[in-house]
Amino acid sequence: MKRILAILLALGAAGRLFAGDIDLPAAQKAGGMPLMEALAKRATGREFASRDLSTQQLANLLWSGFGVNRPDGRRTAPSASNYQEIEIYALLQSGTYVYDAAHHRLHQISSEDLRSLGGKPEAPVTLLFVADLSKRTSGTVESKKAIACIDSGFISENIYLYCASEGLATGYRGRYDEKALAPKLSLRPDQALVAAQSVGYPKP
Amino acid sequence: MKRILAILLALGAAGRLFAGDIDLPAAQKAGGMPLMEALAKRATGREFASRDLSTQQLANLLWSGFGVNRPDGRRTAPSASNYQEIEIYALLQSGTYVYDAAHHRLHQISSEDLRSLGGKPEAPVTLLFVADLSKRTSGTVESKKAIACIDSGFISENIYLYCASEGLATGYRGRYDEKALAPKLSLRPDQALVAAQSVGYPKP
Repeated sequence: MKRILAILLALGAAGRLFAGDIDLPAAQKAGGMPLMEALAKRATGREFASRDLSTQQLANLLWSGFGVNRPDGRRTAPSASNYQEIEIYALLQSGTYVYDAAHHRLHQISSEDLRSLGGKPEAPVTLLFVADLSKRTSGTVESKKAIACIDSGFISENIYLYCASEGLATGYRGRYDEKALAPKLSLRPDQALVAAQSVGYPKP
Repeated sequence: MKRILAILLALGAAGRLFAGDIDLPAAQKAGGMPLMEALAKRATGREFASRDLSTQQLANLLWSGFGVNRPDGRRTAPSASNYQEIEIYALLQSGTYVYDAAHHRLHQISSEDLRSLGGKPEAPVTLLFVADLSKRTSGTVESKKAIACIDSGFISENIYLYCASEGLATGYRGRYDEKALAPKLSLRPDQALVAAQSVGYPKP
């Protein structure tokens, strides 16, 4: 009985894969540019070629940003008091997704290409950092948003360094069509869009 | 005459080294752990051994955080609109310093050991992120502080990854004796202390 329960729990924990979801390949947790070289190449780029990223690059990118890097569910970037309140949404040509870090997959929210609302329609990937303010139990909405902004900075810098290592361009920014995006992403009132970061090969 | 002027300007630009300043060795801009491994090891640590860092490690740490990585003065971490408003203060046993990124040196502010006010007297290094709010020309003080918090997150994550690569412990935090620190650091009213981050070998 215990064993059946364990199997059922494991199946539940694995999560359901819906049509349209992208089951990402495991991130490559070895390799990449030596850290000091990646830091030397860290730069902001805002001009993108239309060339797509491979699924492996997308997997590595998301895991670098805010993937699970320890058995207890802790992540590649810190968050104040480990509330892990940032969710990464991904605007791709094939649709709009949210990164499920625990299962390392992209859960599809919509099959619509919303990259133009994200401000960089030419970039193959625009990531949106969305804070689930309900995860923090104390503080005002404003203080929760301020903390979420700091936490987005940690994640963003991981993405900058992954891009430096991979020869990709990327830039963090606060400009996008928030009013149009929030309903398209089905954001709840206690979710706040804090920033966007597009990623792609640099425009030659 | 032009040549003499150029020499004088160059001497001025090189900056004066005062007694107590630490002229850091050039940061090692190659090597370090492969990026994906550093991301896999990224963690928060708040228990430190008293063992000191070498001057080379201190130099690498500061450059990783917010050093100059391009001839035009751009840095290893981004800042909104490239205002570069964060200055890194370093609390060491030998005194209190501010990191002069352009000249890659620590300028001594005081010979006092203020690590206890920084909240981690046992850590060999406590970094303080101080925002010069006068660098941003538009926005309220609150909005400038919020942007400075994001910018401190970028810098902090570089430090996390450097520490992961080097086997050091580190943790970003908002707790320290701000009222006591501000006058000791001779902060102006338009400078705001936004966060602290201690660094050291992990306590065995």
